[in-house]
Order: sequence, then C-alpha cells, then structure tokens
Amino acid sequence: MSRGELFDPLYGGDRVAARLDDTAWVRALLAVEAALSRAAAAHGVVGDEQAARIEQAAAGLKIDPAELGRAAVEGGNPVIPLVRLLRAAAGEAGTSVHPGATSQDIMDTGLVLLVRSATEVVLDDLRGAADAAAALAAAHRDTPMIARTLGQQALPTTFGAVAAGWCAGLDRARGRLAEVTAALPVQFGGAAGTLAALHPHGFAVADGVADLLGLARQDVPWHTERTRIGELAAALGIAAGACAKPATDVVLLAATELGEVSESAPGDSSSMPHKRNPIAAITARAAARRAPGLVATLLAAMDHEHQRAAGAWHAEWETLTDLLRATGGAAARLRVSLAGLQVHPDAMAADLALTAAGATGPHHAGEIVDRILAGRPGPGQAGP
Amino acid sequence: MSRGELFDPLYGGDRVAARLDDTAWVRALLAVEAALSRAAAAHGVVGDEQAARIEQAAAGLKIDPAELGRAAVEGGNPVIPLVRLLRAAAGEAGTSVHPGATSQDIMDTGLVLLVRSATEVVLDDLRGAADAAAALAAAHRDTPMIARTLGQQALPTTFGAVAAGWCAGLDRARGRLAEVTAALPVQFGGAAGTLAALHPHGFAVADGVADLLGLARQDVPWHTERTRIGELAAALGIAAGACAKPATDVVLLAATELGEVSESAPGDSSSMPHKRNPIAAITARAAARRAPGLVATLLAAMDHEHQRAAGAWHAEWETLTDLLRATGGAAARLRVSLAGLQVHPDAMAADLALTAAGATGPHHAGEIVDRILAGRPGPGQAGP
Amino acid sequence: MSRGELFDPLYGGDRVAARLDDTAWVRALLAVEAALSRAAAAHGVVGDEQAARIEQAAAGLKIDPAELGRAAVEGGNPVIPLVRLLRAAAGEAGTSVHPGATSQDIMDTGLVLLVRSATEVVLDDLRGAADAAAALAAAHRDTPMIARTLGQQALPTTFGAVAAGWCAGLDRARGRLAEVTAALPVQFGGAAGTLAALHPHGFAVADGVADLLGLARQDVPWHTERTRIGELAAALGIAAGACAKPATDVVLLAATELGEVSESAPGDSSSMPHKRNPIAAITARAAARRAPGLVATLLAAMDHEHQRAAGAWHAEWETLTDLLRATGGAAARLRVSLAGLQVHPDAMAADLALTAAGATGPHHAGEIVDRILAGRPGPGQAGP
Amino acid sequence: MSRGELFDPLYGGDRVAARLDDTAWVRALLAVEAALSRAAAAHGVVGDEQAARIEQAAAGLKIDPAELGRAAVEGGNPVIPLVRLLRAAAGEAGTSVHPGATSQDIMDTGLVLLVRSATEVVLDDLRGAADAAAALAAAHRDTPMIARTLGQQALPTTFGAVAAGWCAGLDRARGRLAEVTAALPVQFGGAAGTLAALHPHGFAVADGVADLLGLARQDVPWHTERTRIGELAAALGIAAGACAKPATDVVLLAATELGEVSESAPGDSSSMPHKRNPIAAITARAAARRAPGLVATLLAAMDHEHQRAAGAWHAEWETLTDLLRATGGAAARLRVSLAGLQVHPDAMAADLALTAAGATGPHHAGEIVDRILAGRPGPGQAGP
Repeated sequence: MSRGELFDPLYGGDRVAARLDDTAWVRALLAVEAALSRAAAAHGVVGDEQAARIEQAAAGLKIDPAELGRAAVEGGNPVIPLVRLLRAAAGEAGTSVHPGATSQDIMDTGLVLLVRSATEVVLDDLRGAADAAAALAAAHRDTPMIARTLGQQALPTTFGAVAAGWCAGLDRARGRLAEVTAALPVQFGGAAGTLAALHPHGFAVADGVADLLGLARQDVPWHTERTRIGELAAALGIAAGACAKPATDVVLLAATELGEVSESAPGDSSSMPHKRNPIAAITARAAARRAPGLVATLLAAMDHEHQRAAGAWHAEWETLTDLLRATGGAAARLRVSLAGLQVHPDAMAADLALTAAGATGPHHAGEIVDRILAGRPGPGQAGP
Repeated sequence: MSRGELFDPLYGGDRVAARLDDTAWVRALLAVEAALSRAAAAHGVVGDEQAARIEQAAAGLKIDPAELGRAAVEGGNPVIPLVRLLRAAAGEAGTSVHPGATSQDIMDTGLVLLVRSATEVVLDDLRGAADAAAALAAAHRDTPMIARTLGQQALPTTFGAVAAGWCAGLDRARGRLAEVTAALPVQFGGAAGTLAALHPHGFAVADGVADLLGLARQDVPWHTERTRIGELAAALGIAAGACAKPATDVVLLAATELGEVSESAPGDSSSMPHKRNPIAAITARAAARRAPGLVATLLAAMDHEHQRAAGAWHAEWETLTDLLRATGGAAARLRVSLAGLQVHPDAMAADLALTAAGATGPHHAGEIVDRILAGRPGPGQAGP
Repeated sequence: MSRGELFDPLYGGDRVAARLDDTAWVRALLAVEAALSRAAAAHGVVGDEQAARIEQAAAGLKIDPAELGRAAVEGGNPVIPLVRLLRAAAGEAGTSVHPGATSQDIMDTGLVLLVRSATEVVLDDLRGAADAAAALAAAHRDTPMIARTLGQQALPTTFGAVAAGWCAGLDRARGRLAEVTAALPVQFGGAAGTLAALHPHGFAVADGVADLLGLARQDVPWHTERTRIGELAAALGIAAGACAKPATDVVLLAATELGEVSESAPGDSSSMPHKRNPIAAITARAAARRAPGLVATLLAAMDHEHQRAAGAWHAEWETLTDLLRATGGAAARLRVSLAGLQVHPDAMAADLALTAAGATGPHHAGEIVDRILAGRPGPGQAGP
Repeated sequence: MSRGELFDPLYGGDRVAARLDDTAWVRALLAVEAALSRAAAAHGVVGDEQAARIEQAAAGLKIDPAELGRAAVEGGNPVIPLVRLLRAAAGEAGTSVHPGATSQDIMDTGLVLLVRSATEVVLDDLRGAADAAAALAAAHRDTPMIARTLGQQALPTTFGAVAAGWCAGLDRARGRLAEVTAALPVQFGGAAGTLAALHPHGFAVADGVADLLGLARQDVPWHTERTRIGELAAALGIAAGACAKPATDVVLLAATELGEVSESAPGDSSSMPHKRNPIAAITARAAARRAPGLVATLLAAMDHEHQRAAGAWHAEWETLTDLLRATGGAAARLRVSLAGLQVHPDAMAADLALTAAGATGPHHAGEIVDRILAGRPGPGQAGP
C-alpha cells in the first residue's frame, strides 16, 4: 500500500517523509533498545556480551512494518511485539532486552530520534528559505515598491524591506525550533515512572542511553509531563506560520494585475497554457495551513492522566509526524519559491505610479534591511 | 516507502486506509476521466469510439504513484500529468480526453468517489458499534449501576441506560454522515467555472458524469463554494466525538478500582503481565482526538478566493483523507471494544453499595433504553 | 467592568452579543425554572398556586450577575445559587422550585433558549447577506469579468456568477443552521439522567417544559450525548466559512490595482486619507477566522464522561456563545459589505482586456445565476 | 451590558479579566499615544510643551468604551476615533498627537502592554499552583500510592513523585511564558512600516517609546512578522496544558471509589447534598480545554499579507485576550485546588493493597522529588 507518494512531493514533504516512514520508526525503536542494553551493561545490569549480541540482533533484524503493525494492535503499541522479535533474535541474550523499561520509554525516545532526524531537514529548508529571502533583500535593498495595507495601496516601501521581513520571521522561527529540538531528552522511567526496576542504576542508565544516542539527558522521567511535546508542536506551528506569510505575499504579488514577482518555474494548466501559477508558493501555503489544527491536537493532548495516558499519549505519534511533514513541506516549497523568485522592478514602479501615494519616501527601508541582515545568525548558529 | 502500515491497524484506520491509498486516488481520477469522455460522447462532444478507447486506456493504464507524484509538483496537482499519460495511452483518441474540464473538476469528483468508498467502511463500523451498544443496552436494561456526575457517585442508573446513550449518539452521528455523503455531487465547471468549453452541453455532460459514477448531480459547479466540504468534515468530526464518549466511559469503568466492564481481549504489557488494558477503547480515544483539529483546518480552508483557491483547495485533499482515517479508526476500534465488552454486574452492585446514594431507584432508566432502541433506524436506513 | 463593547460593533457581534450577555443568561435560567414548576404543576408534582408564585418570583427577581457569578464558584455553575435565590423569593412555594431537576437540566435548556434567540439574529444576517448577493447576481447576471484561478487571470466569467456563488453558500449554510437550531430540544433528566425523582411523570414534565418554552421535545435526556452541540457548532462554523469566501473576494477585488468593487462606506486611515479600505469585508473575515478553533474546542469536548462531564460540559458555555458572536459578526459585517457594494464594470472590462484570456465566452454563467436564484428558499423557508 | 461577570469567577478568569476589559484597552492605547508624543519630543519632532499637554489630556480623557466601539466600526479599529478625541482634548497640541504613527503601532504596543499586565497575574497563579504542588511533593515524598497506566493499576510510586511531576510541568511552562512575555517589544513602523514619517528619528523614537513604557525595544517594525504573537499564543497554550494534567489527576484521584485526594472546599449539588465535587480542578480543566483552539486561531492568523493584514491582524485582539483569560483561569483554579488539596494516605494504601502489583518498591520516587524540587527556579527567576 502506497501512501503519501502521490502528494508528498507536491506539498514539499517528501524529504522529511523519508525520515519518518514505518521503517524509520522501526529502526529508531531498535536503536533505543540496543542503546538501552548497552547502557545497562555499563552498570552491570546486563552482561557486555549480551548487549553486544542484542546490538547485532537489532542491526540484523528484518521487520515487516505491516506485520509489526498488526501485532501492535493487541497491546496498543509496536514496542511490545518488537521486543518479542528482538528477544527471539538475540537468542540467549534475549532476557537482557528491554531491561527496566516500559513501552513508553522506547516509544518516546524513538520519537525524539525521529524528530531530531526529520527536523534536520526542516531546519535546513527554513535556513534555505531565509537565505533566499536575505539574498532578495540585499539585491533589492533600494528597489521601490508600494506598501499595501488592508489590501489598498498605502505609501512606498522597498522590496528589500519586504523580503527582509520574510527573512526575519523565518530566522526567528528556525532558531526556536532548533533550540527546542536540541533540548529534547531521552525518556527512561520504567513501568511506573520511578526507575524502580534498575535501582540503584536507573538514572545512570538513563544518562547512558542519552549519551549513546546523542540526545539530551533527562533530569527526571517525563512520561506524563508533556510540556516538551507542546513546545515542539508550537515551534513547528510557528515555523509553518513564518512560511505562510511570504508564501501569501508571493501569491498576491504574482497576481496577473500586479506581476511584481514571478516564480522561476511557474505551473501551467492543462486547459489554459497561458497561465503562470506560482505553484511553489501555493503549495507552501497549503502545507502551512495544515499545521495549526495539528498543533491544537497536541496541545489538547497534554492532559496525560495518571502515570500513562489512555489515549492522549497514543494520539501524539502520527499527529507529530504529520506536523513535521506539514511544516517541512511548507519550508521546502517556500525555499523553492524564493530561491528562484524573479523580481520585476518595472512592474513595481508602474504600480507605484498608479496613485499619488508615492509622495513620501521609504526613508528607513534600507536601514531595516541592514538591521535584519546584520542580525542574522551565522551558518552554525541556531537563532537570531 | 511504507507509511501508515505500522500504526493504521492500532488506530483502527487500516480498513479505511486501504480505500484511500495512492492507488485508490489514481483509480478514482481515471474513473472520472473515463466517465467524462463517455458522458461527453453522449452529447456528441467527443466520438463514441474515442470514449470507448479512453475507457480502455484508463482501465489498462499502469501508474506508479511515486512517479506521478513527482510529475504533479510542477502544476500543483496530479491531474495534469495524469491527463498527459492518459492521452498518450489513448493514442488517436487522446484529444478526446478531459473535454471541457479543469483539474479541479477531476480532483473534486475523484475525492467524492474516494469519500463515498471510504465512508462505506466508516458507516459500517459506526453501525457495528451502535449495534453492539444496543445489544448491551438490551441485555442490561435493568442492571443497576451507580451514575457518576463530575467524577463522583451520584444516584443509581442502569448499565442499559448508559449503553443506550452510547447507541443514540452513534446512530445520530451515523445518520448525518450518511446523509451528507450521499448528497456529495459531481463537480464539473471547466476552467472558469462557467462550463463554457462545452456550451451548450455543459450541464448535460455534468449530469451524465454524475449518473455514470453514481453520484448526486450538481446544480451548479461548486469550485469555491465549499459548504459541502465543511459539512462532510463536520459530520466526520461529530462521529469521532460520538465514538469518544463511549470509549472514555469504557476506559473509566474498566479502571482496576471500578472493574465494572472489561474488554474481551485486553492488552498486556511487556513489563506488567497482570495488567488488562482496554486497548481497543484507548486507541479509539486516540483516533477520535485527532479529528477536531482536522475539522478546524477544513473549516478554516473554506475561504476559497476568486474562482480557484491558491492553497486552501490544495489543503483539503490529505486533511480530508486523514480525517476519514481518524474517524474510521475511532469507529472501528470502538466497535471491537463494545462488541466484546464484558459487563460485571457484581462489581456494579459492589460500587453501588459503597455510599448511601442508592436510595432513589433508576425509575425511568428502562424506559430510556426502550425509547432509544425503538427509535433506531432499520438496517437500510440512514438516520434515526 | 465593560467587556466586548469596544470590539463587538467592529466585529459585527453587537446585535448577537446583546442576546447573550449575563442578563440574558440569568433570564433564560429563570425562564426554565419557571416553566419547570409550571409543567410539574400540570402533573400534580407541585401545586398550581406554587407554580404561579414561582413564576411571579422569577419574573420579579433582581439578580446582579457579578454577585451570582461569585456565588457560582463553589458549585461550579450558576444554577445552584440561583435556585437558592429563587426559593427565597418564592417564600412558601420555595420547596416547589427545581422539582426533580439537576443543574445541567437548567443550564442546557437555558443555553438552548439563548441559542435560539441569538441564532435568530445570525439567521437574519445570513439571509440579508445572501439577499444582497442575490441582488448583485441579478443585476450583474451578464457583466463580464475575468475569472481568476490560483491568483492568475484565467478565462471570462460574469460578476453575476461570482455573486450567485456567494449566495448559494450563504443560503446553504443558513438552511442547515436553521434546521439544527430548530431541532434543539429541552433537557430534563434529573440527577442521574433517569428522570427518577418525578417518576412516573418525568417524561411528561419534560414535554411540558418543552412546550411551554417553545422548544423541541426531547426523546430521552442527553446530558452526555452531545451530538446536538457538535451539530450546532458545526453549522455555525460552516456559516462562518460561507461568509469568509465572499468577504475574501471583496477584499481582493477591491484592491487598488483591481478596483472592481468598492464598499459604500470604505474606512479611511488617520495617516493616509486617500485610502478606501473595505472595512466591512475585512472585519467579516476577522470574525470568521475565529470560528474554526471554537468549533474544534466543542467537538473535542464531546467526550462527556460518565453521567456528567467534569470539565467538558463546563467548557461548552462560553465557547458556544463566543462562536455565536463570531459567526453572527461575520454575517452582520458581510451583509453590510454586500448590501452597499459598488460594482465597477469598467474596471472589470479593463482587467478583462489585460490578457488574451478573454477569447472564450462565459457561456453558462448566466444560467448558473438563474439556477441559483431559482433554487433559493422563500422568505419563510429554512434551506435551499 | 454585562459580559463575563457571570462565568469569569467560575472559570478563574476574573483576576486576569479585570486587566483586559474595555477600560484597560483604552488606557493602554492612551498610554502609548502619550509615550509616543513624549518620545517624539525628545527628538524635537514635537514640542515638549505639546507632549506635556497631550499627556495631561490622555490622563484626563473620559472615554465611554461603547461609544468608542461604535466609532471604531468605520475605520476598523479604535485608534482612529481615539486619536480624534485625544486631538480634540489636547487643543492646540492636537497636531502633535500620533506623530509618524499608524493605527497598528498603537494597537500592537497597547496589546503588548495589556499582555504584560495580564500575564503578571497568570504567572503569579502558575507560580502559586507550582508552589502548592511542590509543597505536596515535599510533604508526601514517601507516601506510597499505586501508579496507574492506561487506567489500570501498575506498580507503586509515591504521591510525592506525582505532585513533583505536576510542579515540573508548571514551572517549565511558566518559565517560557515569562521569557516570551518579557521579550515582547514596542511596535513602531508608521504607515508603511518604514518609519518614513519621522526620518531620521524613526528608530530613536521607537526606542524612546519602549523605554518610557518599560517594554523591550524593537529591532525593526514587526507589523506583519508575527512570530512573537505565535510564541505568546504557544506559551499560553502550553501553560494551559500544564494545568490540565494535574487538574485531570485531581478529578480522577478524587473519584468516590478512589478517594485518594479531595479538595478543601468541594462543591455540593442542589439535588445531591452528599456529593463532594472537586470543582476547582473541574473548572481548571474546563478553562484549559478552551486554549488549544484559540492557539490554532492565532497560528493560522500568522499569514499577514502585504504590509498590513486585512483580517488576520484584527482576528488577534480578542482571541489573545480570550486565551489569556482561559490560561489564567486554568492556573487560578488549579492553584485553589492544589493549595487546599487534602491527601488521604490511608485510601492510597488501601488502593495499593487491591492487587499484587505492589511487589516492587518505588525506588527512585524520592529522588525524583528531590531533583525536581532542587531544580526549581527561585522566586525572582523566570524558568527552571
């Protein structure tokens, strides 16, 4: 069964989606189990040899996601059958699989791994889109155009100031998303969230898993303390919004009657070959529009009752990967739109001359561009 | 790339998902194109022979969804490259493909076909869940239990009255969903929504397509008049809510301390074999929780500007199929939960005896059951 | 403390808001209590004289909403302290107040009364906006304009066809809202939803309350069967979406560069007196944008657990009145926008001449207008 | 017209609401105008005497919010008529009112002032709720109770660990909200966002306004770069979610059958005096449930087109104040619930003895408490 392959490229979500598919999930879960056994071995909870055997088994295990998915129904998550398979594959070391862990430890840590991987792509595309906006701002620092407020021509600005504003929003959203993602910790609490089964090694094993997987350490288990999930959802939703703004501007400025910008590869139409649809911006908007509802779902699911939620937890998995695809798609398509954007100063000048609104100069517009470009984070930096 | 196969069964969405995958999309779009050429032939717009040739070509066309998806990026929807493929496959009849149509005609009508197909499953599961609730209501018409209000024991009711209430909500939601789905019409408006290209046969061809595909006829094209999409989204969201109520009750009544119901195949836990988790109800809740945000996305996307929306339209496709999976999943998992629900009158009696609240009898509870069961629609009927 | 008076007129919500304020709530709750005692008297549950005395007391009771609000904190709803006040005011008849009822009976029925009252205004404004659109459609049945798809000029249509599409959406949304609102029944179930306290008169008293208040009868109590609330929320959200479409079109068509329509009383600007902002359409959009999130809140709150929800129920009250204000505001402002809309055929013709897109005629556009106008419901009819 | 006074106390929103009412809005807008004239005077843009006169006029101006609200309809925001009134009141200094500003400068900066003021209350209640949770955690560091996962008894934990988890979420959410709120800058861009009218003093005047009002300085105007609004909305939504978790736990643990906690002032019921409803937690949940939909509305409204959005901007004002009330209410009611929470170790022990699940000790539970309490921010510190 093929899902997503028909629409992912169009929405820009294909590159992210490849890091979030069923196989990526299974690999992430196995990586967590392997790291857990290894970390437990460091504290003598399981044997070193057993851990090595489990790592081997995990690496070699061939899993059919569909089959695992069917087996996951009974217990309500794929970890339970996966542990069975891994135990079987590890032979005598099987009893050293999943030491002191509960399914949520593996699912949450696996999800963090997936998020880290997928967010790399999202951050890259947000950076690419912001860089393209910055280049437009620099190139058109002093290109006059009419500012439009409430849909009406207002007073002059420059296209540089407009593009710099796009850049500012994208940089800011990217910085926060990078910050939130980097802070996502390992999850390890055991059946009741008390790390009881590995006493007195619980915290140390948790730190070991984090170190092995390159994740932040947890202070305490966070099975039902979901502010981190809320923060991640919010950062993604804000990034989608930061993409929606320039995408909307591109669509409007590319309107036939304005013609102030056009995409480098506008879409045609089977029935109307004369059309030049700014399809990249259009589909960036479409992707971005899907984010707020998904954010709301995740925020509403923060009420994890007792020590493991009966539904709110399960609702997070696909909602979060859908949100990563939506935001990633918006960023990817916007990047395409802005990286190839053709700017038409003549059309801007013609529109500027339509009304007498051009009397005042866009006096600080250049300085706005300068300030935004000067304040941008370097290539290796997270935020502004 | 496999997506959804790991989680669909768990969320109950697998049966619906199979009717919404990439292949189903492609088949639906081809079916619309074939019907369109056939309907156009009935009015002499294209030749009968051409129409036959196109039907053959559509039936025989082998499409790789991933490839079509990549080709769809440029124009922003898969119809454009699909028409190219179909034209090529139809040889000399190629010029008779897509007569008078715009991409949205094919996408909207194809989406309606998918919705009709997927909703059959959703309606079936809603009916199954409601029937199970009705059977529980009949069997326990007079089984006393304590009513709980604001989380506290209140006064007596019967389990029959509780289950009958579940049934009433499910029946009502199903009736509306059936009604809305059945009324979804064909879409045919041409490039500008004026049916210009086939004048004077536009309306007649539109009706012909509807008849051939078994869909409701359109009165006028509805490219940007999206109340129908809003109604469909709403009916699905309400159905999800109607599932969330009994699922929540089952989870709460199955709590260890109450133990008034249990699922027939409760999930276990790798770390705690003594547990009996009501997994079907839990995952029904999880699926249902995903619906409201998706409904909001679709309602917010009703503002289709001009004669074809630059983003709002594109945002509908996957949001709607996600919503079908979410609601379908909630219904399917709830059906499993209720169909096998074990009721424990002894535990109910014990809880009823905990406080002095039981003085008043549940006097009308039986009549409530009777009224609800008497008012149920017959097997072939849509609503209550 | 004044709330809403600063922004309600701007968002168009003032007329609806006046029917939903604190005083309207208190009056509605008292009306339900009075009707309940009267209906109970008809079955000998309380004395006729007592009922008369209670009606008098309810009519004369002076309630300070702020004080009642503070007294409502303890029990979590205003009915509890209101019943105390009404009992005190009714003197010896005080024991005949609130017979067999629970707070939710009064709150739900009171809410239905408020909804009925507020929806009258919303329906009237939806009708007014649709009538204005219909008048524009009739007047401009054959006024050519360019259709725009994906933001680009496509092929010709007529302004009549555009306005008729607005009308179709508004009529359809209004019809459903009228239907849903009219079907909202009384709520009467007593403490455990079993009508136990008034046995054997429970159902009859419920019907009596409905008849006295002019509401639909309930079949059974619906304390935790919230499909009706979901349906109402959905109908309001769809109506908001049906307003967002024409409002968005007006904003875009009124852009300086298009100038194809303008509002009769466009807003000015303190800093730019030359501007002609289509403020009515702008604020209609603003109001409409607030609806989908509120609908999602209400759908997510359908999971009323047990026999009275501990939070989900309480979340409905203000969310629903906020939604009524949002949708009502969108309808009211759109009506103003459309009723005074100035259409500029010259500008339409000029834009039509911009590209060679005008070759094809808008052949069926007039028939689309005719079909929509012919299918409109009469003044007294609910839906299309 | 009274709005909110009936329900605000119940939802806990009354203290916040008092800082967000119509009068607070008007005062905030006037404060911005006064600061603007004063800052402009510092750069010789207007006279010092004029600025002083305007400050006096602003301080003395009596505004009827309802009247101002009606006058705001024409231009779409209350600043336009307010400037007229202030100019009239300032006499000859009237021409020095609103120098170089556009309505959005005043509205946005005024909104930031309101947010700062209202958030003080929200942060205080979040701190109070967290402190109460911390006190419970310290007092019950070693009080055993059963952990419940997926609604079923699992293994032992301590009530201290549970309460410490509540504290951790509340502290974390509060820290972020404090951070985001403190960073909200002044808005000053003028008609086209280019600070043109005050050239070359634009940036300096903007800084002056910020300093006078105690707000962060802007780097550049942010009329349509709305990541800050998104961040604020998200921080409020996350805080609401952090309140929903403990509120839900309290409701569940207070269930008659568990009885492990109870509120100090549980609500009664007019019909069932034996009930002890945990009303504070119930209404905290209700308030929290309203947040996610409002967050989604604000995220969806980030697509501010051109240089001033025609609707998306206007949709922010009341949505944001509604969200402040919702989150503030959740925090306030949760604080009441937790500050008076009665813990029943005997009931916990009895429930713990129900099954054989208690074999394993809650070995790290105490250390979890210690870690969380040790990591708490000091009274003057924002975050953990």
